[in-house]
Amino acid sequence: MNVVLEINADRLLEDLKRLRTFGAAGPGVVRLALSSIDIESRNWLAGRMTEAGLDAMVDGVGTVFGRSRKSGPVLLIGSHTDTQPTGGWLDGAMGVIYGLEIARALSESDDLSHLAVDVASWIDEEGTFSAFLGSRSFVGQRVEESIRSAQNREGLRLQDALERAGLSGRPRVRLEAARHRAYLEPHIEQGGRLENAGKSIGVVATIVGIHEVRLRFTGQRNHAGTTPLSIRRDAGAALVCFIQRMNEAFRQLADADTVWTVGRIELDPGSLSVVPGQADMHLQFRDANTTRLHAMEVKLTELVRDFNAEGGVSVQLARLSEPEEPVTMNAELRAHVARAADAVAPGQWMQMPSGASHDAQVIAPHLPSCMVFVPSIGGISHDFIEDTNEEDIVRGCRVAGLAAVSILKELWGTPS
Amino acid sequence: MNVVLEINADRLLEDLKRLRTFGAAGPGVVRLALSSIDIESRNWLAGRMTEAGLDAMVDGVGTVFGRSRKSGPVLLIGSHTDTQPTGGWLDGAMGVIYGLEIARALSESDDLSHLAVDVASWIDEEGTFSAFLGSRSFVGQRVEESIRSAQNREGLRLQDALERAGLSGRPRVRLEAARHRAYLEPHIEQGGRLENAGKSIGVVATIVGIHEVRLRFTGQRNHAGTTPLSIRRDAGAALVCFIQRMNEAFRQLADADTVWTVGRIELDPGSLSVVPGQADMHLQFRDANTTRLHAMEVKLTELVRDFNAEGGVSVQLARLSEPEEPVTMNAELRAHVARAADAVAPGQWMQMPSGASHDAQVIAPHLPSCMVFVPSIGGISHDFIEDTNEEDIVRGCRVAGLAAVSILKELWGTPS
Repeated sequence: MNVVLEINADRLLEDLKRLRTFGAAGPGVVRLALSSIDIESRNWLAGRMTEAGLDAMVDGVGTVFGRSRKSGPVLLIGSHTDTQPTGGWLDGAMGVIYGLEIARALSESDDLSHLAVDVASWIDEEGTFSAFLGSRSFVGQRVEESIRSAQNREGLRLQDALERAGLSGRPRVRLEAARHRAYLEPHIEQGGRLENAGKSIGVVATIVGIHEVRLRFTGQRNHAGTTPLSIRRDAGAALVCFIQRMNEAFRQLADADTVWTVGRIELDPGSLSVVPGQADMHLQFRDANTTRLHAMEVKLTELVRDFNAEGGVSVQLARLSEPEEPVTMNAELRAHVARAADAVAPGQWMQMPSGASHDAQVIAPHLPSCMVFVPSIGGISHDFIEDTNEEDIVRGCRVAGLAAVSILKELWGTPS
Repeated sequence: MNVVLEINADRLLEDLKRLRTFGAAGPGVVRLALSSIDIESRNWLAGRMTEAGLDAMVDGVGTVFGRSRKSGPVLLIGSHTDTQPTGGWLDGAMGVIYGLEIARALSESDDLSHLAVDVASWIDEEGTFSAFLGSRSFVGQRVEESIRSAQNREGLRLQDALERAGLSGRPRVRLEAARHRAYLEPHIEQGGRLENAGKSIGVVATIVGIHEVRLRFTGQRNHAGTTPLSIRRDAGAALVCFIQRMNEAFRQLADADTVWTVGRIELDPGSLSVVPGQADMHLQFRDANTTRLHAMEVKLTELVRDFNAEGGVSVQLARLSEPEEPVTMNAELRAHVARAADAVAPGQWMQMPSGASHDAQVIAPHLPSCMVFVPSIGGISHDFIEDTNEEDIVRGCRVAGLAAVSILKELWGTPS
């Protein structure tokens, strides 16, 4: 691999830092999808795309799309620039600016200026109104229902937010099968695996699947002074006991990347002097392997059945959302990214799952997709202090750029 | 014990049912201390006391006090007529009406009309403003600070509630050492021990002590998808693990009457996709034995120390209230009650601790005190459906009446 794409590190970092000023909050960013500051940032981004020679637009749902004017097969590079309520400056934003920089670098190259890259900032990846709205609209999922009914935390309807931003009437960008041949999403890792392993690049193999359930324990509310332990039906104590059993059972099924999280526990009535009559827990489990996810689901059902068979406190299992199945990245694209990583950062990269969700999982069923990660300092994300070393940011862009060239050359039939 | 005190069962039950109409809510009662309906009920109660030949008043904090006009040693019989926000009809009320009925029955008796009983309905046992306000004021505790600063849930200050009820300027009834020689508090059990044991009368040996603490676990908030279990510092998982260890340790120290309750758990931020960075639990433990309570406290401190020594998630222990130490009932008075129980309900009574708090624990350090319990159906209290069989109510009053006669005769030096 002897092609070199000249990434302009200063320009890359300047654009990232400029984008950070839209909604800046200390070191972090508050730029919720379709807020006025988000719309400002989208107009700025569209301007930067135009300066880069792309045909740029903010589409009918808010996605910023920079369309290459070049002919031939197109690599789509994208991510998102909306943030969490207490967001970091790189989550999503970095991948979008990588796309912009790679498009510019290709145009400036004597040998590579024929290679076409479209750049996207998908709207509302974070789900302020409706998660993955931009990428879902792009691949042709029906989003009308979301637009009509989704609301943000303040009760503002998505439809009204789009109206207010002047986007309602606009066309929505759609996947063009003959044109779009591959999707690359660069992103910060948002976890601590790379840092712990001492690596600087992650080549994503799979985006993990997610199951989310609620377990509700029903016992008998009672006076905490006058009710002996022997006759209590304490829903909270039952919940704690269930978690123990579940942890033991899941450990038997798990590998090193399997995760499960009890993120919420509520005891009713929640008073010092009252034995809880009801207890709820929210459980999420994630894995890259569909078979394992289903085995965990089956085990959970068994644990619930056994628990209920014992009498005393009863437990009911309910889904909190439709399960998201794991999404495997395209093997050929992954190989391009791995080769690029090995060229730029020999010995410093690793294959890994993505524990977080990304627009790539929406796009992958419709377009061969891949992802590349750079380390998050301390593994911290969705927090104002989220950060990545500048040299890691620049290195990641070099890997993404090299992978882009390699993918596009193969699409042209001129592999390097 | 051949004395018989003629309890008028119809009159007893009629008064209880009349009192139930003040604040009736279905089968239950909402009669929060110093609410307008509570004041109405107090005026009615004072009227009934006057009809019974007592000098009755509602005092400067709201306690209804019926003072015997007889000379000689006085037995004080009391409890409370204020209720929980969703209260039952007997919690407190029963003991007060027992006192009223016993005072009437004594006056109507040819042989016993010289025996003097004062009757009290202590204000705010339930702590709408300040728990045990009436009994605390009676025994001479300083309640000025409570009157100035205590508020109900709606933010109404106790001082203003007293003003509004026209009570502010009134004298407050006080314990008279030369006059008041013993205190008897009849009450519903509020638990299921009597019912489970098939008994109809409980002779209270001790009112249990109560310790209330908060345990705060501090870990690291993290993304629930990208953070492997191996590097998590999950405050919620640590809390669950701690409860297991605590349950095991407390089981070693406990007897059949020891209780401990985790009534509240809060995970922060409480989101499905976030590893909890902080977790709080509220723990209450009760026991009749001071030594055991202290052993539990010491064990808890050890568990906390050991947990922190392991690294990872840290835990801090904080008191939620001043510990209430167990209060032992006066042995001689208890013997009177036990003999009365055995006379009225041979083989159907038992000695037992009170798991709940009562005004008797405030009064006991100042005046020899005892309590008698009747069963609660299903062990349910602090609930609209709280109830006791009418025959148990009447039987309880017969036991209390007989005990009252026995105690007073001994005070007169003419034991039966």
